[in-house]
Amino acid sequence: MPAAQPIMGINPAMRRAWLAHNTGHALDATSHTAFADEDVRANIENLVGAVEVPLGIAGPLRVNGTYAKGSFYVPLATTEGTLVSTYQYGMRAISEAGGANAYVLGDALDIAPCFVLADARAAIALADWLGAHLADLQAIAAESTAHGRLLDVRPHVFGRRVFAQCVFSTGDAMGMNMVNLAVDRICRHVVAAVPCERFYLRCNYSSDKKPAAINLFRPYGKEVAIDLTMPGEVVRSHLGVSPRELVDFSATGRLGSIQAGALGTNAHFANGLAAIFIACGQDVAQIVNASIGFLDLELVGDDDVYVAARLPNLVVATVGGGTALPTQRECLELLGCVGDGTARKFAEIVGAALVAGELAICAALANGRFIEAHRQNRRQG
Amino acid sequence: MPAAQPIMGINPAMRRAWLAHNTGHALDATSHTAFADEDVRANIENLVGAVEVPLGIAGPLRVNGTYAKGSFYVPLATTEGTLVSTYQYGMRAISEAGGANAYVLGDALDIAPCFVLADARAAIALADWLGAHLADLQAIAAESTAHGRLLDVRPHVFGRRVFAQCVFSTGDAMGMNMVNLAVDRICRHVVAAVPCERFYLRCNYSSDKKPAAINLFRPYGKEVAIDLTMPGEVVRSHLGVSPRELVDFSATGRLGSIQAGALGTNAHFANGLAAIFIACGQDVAQIVNASIGFLDLELVGDDDVYVAARLPNLVVATVGGGTALPTQRECLELLGCVGDGTARKFAEIVGAALVAGELAICAALANGRFIEAHRQNRRQG
Amino acid sequence: MPAAQPIMGINPAMRRAWLAHNTGHALDATSHTAFADEDVRANIENLVGAVEVPLGIAGPLRVNGTYAKGSFYVPLATTEGTLVSTYQYGMRAISEAGGANAYVLGDALDIAPCFVLADARAAIALADWLGAHLADLQAIAAESTAHGRLLDVRPHVFGRRVFAQCVFSTGDAMGMNMVNLAVDRICRHVVAAVPCERFYLRCNYSSDKKPAAINLFRPYGKEVAIDLTMPGEVVRSHLGVSPRELVDFSATGRLGSIQAGALGTNAHFANGLAAIFIACGQDVAQIVNASIGFLDLELVGDDDVYVAARLPNLVVATVGGGTALPTQRECLELLGCVGDGTARKFAEIVGAALVAGELAICAALANGRFIEAHRQNRRQG
Amino acid sequence: MPAAQPIMGINPAMRRAWLAHNTGHALDATSHTAFADEDVRANIENLVGAVEVPLGIAGPLRVNGTYAKGSFYVPLATTEGTLVSTYQYGMRAISEAGGANAYVLGDALDIAPCFVLADARAAIALADWLGAHLADLQAIAAESTAHGRLLDVRPHVFGRRVFAQCVFSTGDAMGMNMVNLAVDRICRHVVAAVPCERFYLRCNYSSDKKPAAINLFRPYGKEVAIDLTMPGEVVRSHLGVSPRELVDFSATGRLGSIQAGALGTNAHFANGLAAIFIACGQDVAQIVNASIGFLDLELVGDDDVYVAARLPNLVVATVGGGTALPTQRECLELLGCVGDGTARKFAEIVGAALVAGELAICAALANGRFIEAHRQNRRQG
Repeated sequence: MPAAQPIMGINPAMRRAWLAHNTGHALDATSHTAFADEDVRANIENLVGAVEVPLGIAGPLRVNGTYAKGSFYVPLATTEGTLVSTYQYGMRAISEAGGANAYVLGDALDIAPCFVLADARAAIALADWLGAHLADLQAIAAESTAHGRLLDVRPHVFGRRVFAQCVFSTGDAMGMNMVNLAVDRICRHVVAAVPCERFYLRCNYSSDKKPAAINLFRPYGKEVAIDLTMPGEVVRSHLGVSPRELVDFSATGRLGSIQAGALGTNAHFANGLAAIFIACGQDVAQIVNASIGFLDLELVGDDDVYVAARLPNLVVATVGGGTALPTQRECLELLGCVGDGTARKFAEIVGAALVAGELAICAALANGRFIEAHRQNRRQG
Repeated sequence: MPAAQPIMGINPAMRRAWLAHNTGHALDATSHTAFADEDVRANIENLVGAVEVPLGIAGPLRVNGTYAKGSFYVPLATTEGTLVSTYQYGMRAISEAGGANAYVLGDALDIAPCFVLADARAAIALADWLGAHLADLQAIAAESTAHGRLLDVRPHVFGRRVFAQCVFSTGDAMGMNMVNLAVDRICRHVVAAVPCERFYLRCNYSSDKKPAAINLFRPYGKEVAIDLTMPGEVVRSHLGVSPRELVDFSATGRLGSIQAGALGTNAHFANGLAAIFIACGQDVAQIVNASIGFLDLELVGDDDVYVAARLPNLVVATVGGGTALPTQRECLELLGCVGDGTARKFAEIVGAALVAGELAICAALANGRFIEAHRQNRRQG
Repeated sequence: MPAAQPIMGINPAMRRAWLAHNTGHALDATSHTAFADEDVRANIENLVGAVEVPLGIAGPLRVNGTYAKGSFYVPLATTEGTLVSTYQYGMRAISEAGGANAYVLGDALDIAPCFVLADARAAIALADWLGAHLADLQAIAAESTAHGRLLDVRPHVFGRRVFAQCVFSTGDAMGMNMVNLAVDRICRHVVAAVPCERFYLRCNYSSDKKPAAINLFRPYGKEVAIDLTMPGEVVRSHLGVSPRELVDFSATGRLGSIQAGALGTNAHFANGLAAIFIACGQDVAQIVNASIGFLDLELVGDDDVYVAARLPNLVVATVGGGTALPTQRECLELLGCVGDGTARKFAEIVGAALVAGELAICAALANGRFIEAHRQNRRQG
Repeated sequence: MPAAQPIMGINPAMRRAWLAHNTGHALDATSHTAFADEDVRANIENLVGAVEVPLGIAGPLRVNGTYAKGSFYVPLATTEGTLVSTYQYGMRAISEAGGANAYVLGDALDIAPCFVLADARAAIALADWLGAHLADLQAIAAESTAHGRLLDVRPHVFGRRVFAQCVFSTGDAMGMNMVNLAVDRICRHVVAAVPCERFYLRCNYSSDKKPAAINLFRPYGKEVAIDLTMPGEVVRSHLGVSPRELVDFSATGRLGSIQAGALGTNAHFANGLAAIFIACGQDVAQIVNASIGFLDLELVGDDDVYVAARLPNLVVATVGGGTALPTQRECLELLGCVGDGTARKFAEIVGAALVAGELAICAALANGRFIEAHRQNRRQG
């Protein structure tokens, strides 16, 4: 078999033509896009067009956050039937209960370069050096980025290696690029000052886009807390289940998570995350981290359900990445999340939306209407 | 604050108009789509249009699989600059090394309903009963789906609960809907035969779209193995790094994963998964499971690098879900993955593509050109 | 500094004299033992004497097991004040509630040799070969041990490696020695039949004496289930707390475990395990595995507490190891666990005792008397 | 079946007589002890005597630590044949290589009481309050213990709960009792100042004696690092294997750990821990935490092996607990670990001993003599 050729072409049309010629498959539908080629220069290489993901809206969702205050219509891009209606169902219940409280508990992004030295003695010495030179490293970071700020460097020593967690605040941007750049400069400064055998800019310790235990314990992106108390009558009328039944299901679901050795415990944070992240131009692979979170329900008072969620890894942005593309921009605008200082607002809305999805699916599994709901949507579209 | 209104409108245009009127935000860009409203009836509710995700192509990628044989141009839908070029870089190296071997080690999907009984004695009895009645349960499953097949029911007893892992083969479909339906019927049969306090169709034990230890140990979707041996000269010329340097980085990355308590060990499976899954109409939330996998590099022979990957949770489909939408269909066609018996082929291509992304990023981190590569792409688009 | 000398001496007395001479520290107290040197020849090398661990008794503990039926006085060897009284407190509550039900859900021990081959293709072929030759491998195992029986070989392929889980039943013995010997023979047979680059008898995959996710999912030693329903009045009078308070604490403890990323969920299985394992001549390092387990409490009926535990990794024995030493033998006799077929009985008693410890500590933390209980024991001894 | 009676008797002899009368089993061997009843009053309740665990000595082990400097003879109490000789074998190799370097990277113990409030808003407010009142809380802690010192309080908020990690230094004592007492006072102070629905002194978040992801990330007890470089000739002559073979085995063992989802990666830290902890009067259940650690081997230089270990959870003590009992005291004396400031020294010795055990078992598995070594010991005793 002769080797296949690399893709030729200096623009999308030429690449499509080349692919059609060489593979026999035309890319017609993908050629129709609302964005110009130059609009996405920083977003992609080898551009041939666009994939269209259906967009639905769920809402209104009432959020009582520090940054997000009011009712929101949440854009969800998905091809999985019932997803939008599930979230809408839960949003209605939350809104009827007065809304979900939302808090940003933490806001930081880190990467952990690894410095390899001669032995543990040298590694410990470097760890000490890093602690003593934080201000210098902060100054170096400040030279390479105006938006990011180096908050801390936390060395973790294993043998002759120092994994140096460099923790940044990144504002409204997702910030990975600025963090990479700043830490690269920091690393070059470090190895000039302290002789190392070698260093790597990254080495998995931060567990970016990877599920790891470390994701349970430190804010990665925005750490969001959500809670609300749902009156029994709202549970019954809007979730179609009694408080007791809902909490009983939740207890079994928690046992299921524990027996399965889950990182976190929730039913399907990932569904809402994927749909919102695609709609709003986020880095979709970040749902791997972001879906590691905790939901808990408990009976309180006479007949109410207390709902709590913790999402320690919500890596979101309202500038940069795909947020400026035409369709994605419209989705962010719909949420009022364009402009300075909107990333935390966006994170709070996302958190509240995810809780809506949890309540809806828990109710459907508790009252046995899960299949019915899926069937109905399938018929109605 | 008065309560916000639920979304009104019987079609996308009306919904957009309603939203514009009520929120002040128009959804213009999203209104241009290649699909008709009725095309996505089973895919979404409250449709208002489409989000466009830029599509790039990486390749050719040579795959020597059981099902995928040949060179492939892989569609990647993303807004993250450098992603496509990273994968392309790795694909070239793999192709120059003769291609990646690919194997489907397992193929199954399960959900685990939970039956709640009076006590452990009754739960153990039900577990025994399920084992003794597998043929009956298989017959019931067969009534509700022609495509899925119940392979096994594996009861897991905790106290008075039986988590009954119902394992299906689902062919080319992702299969969750058929599995849900079949298991719902199975559950109703079970509780008619064996009195239970209650049952839940699902309860987190399967860890669908959630990271959990159980995902390391059983095929969920397609379990794919990839391996290849890269000659030293290919490593040097196409990855810009010596075999020793590449493997040294890999060792540090593996330590990073271990120190972070990672589930699996890889650098960024999630990136390729997200981009391919969006492009090809997959259930994007499944990347949470699918990204739990293992990559390992070792020096072999005089100067070669042996590369191995295991992806136990590749939940993919070539029919159903978003696979029939116009742009997504074109992407699957480009891979020759439309039609009967193509899901395993698709899984093998995905697996090989992910390995390409690993090699490229490991090389860039090993040779210190990670930042340079990102900068260059940013300039060139 | 001159190199220290290796220990000299052909018997304990000479070794003690040598140590006293060379280090200045006599080992007088340790020289008094109930066992003769030759009694422990198979148990230890470089013997110098014995360490004495204080032995207390808790009970009676009523167990309604398949193998353990009746009330038991449980020997606990510990130096941690309050431990014995805590277990006794819980045992009384269990006994007053009519006893703990106990079941052996599984009984097996495995080790997983690793075969390294040329590539994944060869590894998959070996995995198939192992499946096709199970009967042969069982025959080989049978030649090396009369007590152990090879139940299954489960190959796990990663790249060019096959981790071959060899699962045995080991009867009343812990069985690791017989399993090692039998698997060594199996491995030599395998590599004679199928060329391998190399093999290792063991390689961590079995996670013997190491905490790992795999320990959640397969019996390792005896898998024991315990349950009972505690009437509200027993909870109140014997645990000093209301059912609601007890279950409320349990819910918070469960959240604590989940937030901490625990493997399993329990309060202090390890305490009872350590004390019983030392007393009864078990392999004490096995408490690492054995302590990975699950405890759950829930309110049932009007006012009762349902208690469930699952202990999937109870590696215990009533023959071999330290079980025949004089003091250890007496402890096993006290439980009626000497002689054929007593290992499962012993496992059931251990499981019930651990649940007693859980109930007692949960009650003490729920009612705020934890400190008071510790103080009181400290005074009374 | 009539209910069994609680154990009667005001001293060990009476209890033994009572048990003999009621169960038919005498406890003769256990009645011979080197300690008087009053010596163990704080260590145990319902005392009936002592269990004797055979004691062997391995060494000399050369340690180049910050606190442990010199060659040590390590006491190991075990009933598992080959354990002592395995550790001795590794200790000789380490000593021939010039000794193991040892460092105490951290030294702290924490428990995490849980405060339950009305909602997340109140929980966040309490978290802030705790941060603002650290000095007050330190003063309260200081009133209840002269040896422990409250270093920090780190609140972790989930919903309406605050898990408040109270971090102490505990000196030479294990310290759990002093920490429990001090935190109980702290809690009572907190709830007097900030109204809470309730609080629990402990709730599993600290994962004391339980395997959890949190144990990877913070010192719990002493965090010890060990490293050394073994010259190739020492590896060959004292471990009977080439550096390449040793490191190759290590790579497969690491893959085994990763595939099994291990917390940490090592071969059998637990064995050495159990044996030393029993010998030296430690809290044996702590081996569950302490065995969560990391070992890594790599080829360095021309022909050498670099060995690194990290043990983040070595909860050890040289005062309190069982350390003053006659036989245990002798074992600590043999190590020179009696008296002020010896706990870190002890921790360094333990860490080095564990690494010895790793090297020995890795070598035996790498060179295929594992079974032979076990057989030989069995014969020779």
